[in-house]
Amino acid sequence: MRSLQFTTESSSDGMTGRDFLLGDIPGVLWSPDPAGAPAPLVLMGHGGGAHKKHRAMVGRAHLLVKDCGFHAAVLDAPGHGDRPRTALDERDIAALRTAQAAGEPESPVVVPYNARLAEQAVPEYRALLDALRELPEIGAEGPVGYVGMGLGMAIGVPLVAAEPRITAAVFGMAWPDALFDAARRISVPVEFDVQWDDERVPRESALALFDAFASKEKTLHANAGTHVAWPLFEAESATRFFARHLGGQVTPTA
Amino acid sequence: MRSLQFTTESSSDGMTGRDFLLGDIPGVLWSPDPAGAPAPLVLMGHGGGAHKKHRAMVGRAHLLVKDCGFHAAVLDAPGHGDRPRTALDERDIAALRTAQAAGEPESPVVVPYNARLAEQAVPEYRALLDALRELPEIGAEGPVGYVGMGLGMAIGVPLVAAEPRITAAVFGMAWPDALFDAARRISVPVEFDVQWDDERVPRESALALFDAFASKEKTLHANAGTHVAWPLFEAESATRFFARHLGGQVTPTA
Repeated sequence: MRSLQFTTESSSDGMTGRDFLLGDIPGVLWSPDPAGAPAPLVLMGHGGGAHKKHRAMVGRAHLLVKDCGFHAAVLDAPGHGDRPRTALDERDIAALRTAQAAGEPESPVVVPYNARLAEQAVPEYRALLDALRELPEIGAEGPVGYVGMGLGMAIGVPLVAAEPRITAAVFGMAWPDALFDAARRISVPVEFDVQWDDERVPRESALALFDAFASKEKTLHANAGTHVAWPLFEAESATRFFARHLGGQVTPTA
Repeated sequence: MRSLQFTTESSSDGMTGRDFLLGDIPGVLWSPDPAGAPAPLVLMGHGGGAHKKHRAMVGRAHLLVKDCGFHAAVLDAPGHGDRPRTALDERDIAALRTAQAAGEPESPVVVPYNARLAEQAVPEYRALLDALRELPEIGAEGPVGYVGMGLGMAIGVPLVAAEPRITAAVFGMAWPDALFDAARRISVPVEFDVQWDDERVPRESALALFDAFASKEKTLHANAGTHVAWPLFEAESATRFFARHLGGQVTPTA
């Protein structure tokens, strides 16, 4: 088992952020300040090209910690943030830049690249869950959710399919091609964000993936607009989804 | 212009309900108690076979009035609630019961039936808007929304297409067949509820109608489940949608 070691800590305005190393993998745990009784945990996965402290992660952590009293944790994905890139990473990123510059389809590069990262990241997130559940403020039995868009979804779908301790998940904005088998093994409540006019991820395949989730309770949120036009109010919707399924009430702070 | 006459009034727990007659059409206006500065108005349309005080209407009014400080108003649809049925209504309802009992498709009956009721109801709702905007607690310039499912959507889509004073709308759960032309004329923000496994309204035609709205900002909420399994949390989502677009904040009461 990888050891969890907290490195730096900072608190402000009702939220504590603790950087940690899980073995040699950097991550962050955001928690309510002061800590109260054990509270639900939401694992987060950042998007491709981003990192653990990207504003999307900090923003979601704010909503989850301050509005719900939950904990939120994220790891740098392999080859992202403070983690070294391998030669394979460099090769895939170069191929992606080349495809984008040439206006060629990204999916032949992105799909296997993300699947490779996910294969590595899934056991890392499971080890993170082992370690975080040893903390008294989270506890061994508390509810756990997962949220990830893009690369965070490419990691999250196989993670949630494999991990029975995760009981609610929010996904969105990833190429579905490599995710159908895992989606069919997911039966926990899912909220799935799609951009209706996504110029990168084809609408039909996104709808087919939503259909593939075995979850009895699943909600598709399709918003007009391109890939990057994903609206921020969906982060608030995801927060309410976790409050519904992990327990608790949303009390908006501002 | 039809005159608006309040008949009975009752208040409880921060909300006043006033029954009224608009000419000879019965309706209800729910308002914050005590009344404050002029506040946004949401017009509501009830579902087929229901009426102005159906629990779906009272429930939405509670959310809009008590959580947002808005007004909410609804009319009995033609041939519904306290309004007389015509011979045509009786004929259509009998045909619908026959089709349902025989397990035959409902849409050949429901689509023209609802279109006929909508043709009558649209000018009624426009007259209601004229009358309500003369009330000081609503005002001539305030924001107006519309929400309706089923029959309420069959009325609401042509209403919102025709009525520039309505600047945000929530629809769902109606047969789309007769609504495409009107949907293409709607450019205000729309939230559209679909049941992914609806055994009555075909998924493909519901998705095509969502595509048809000309709105730059539109969101599809597709939930797993059959027609009647529409989840109540969508009423809360609609409330937040109106708070976003008509102005104001949601403060959940319980």
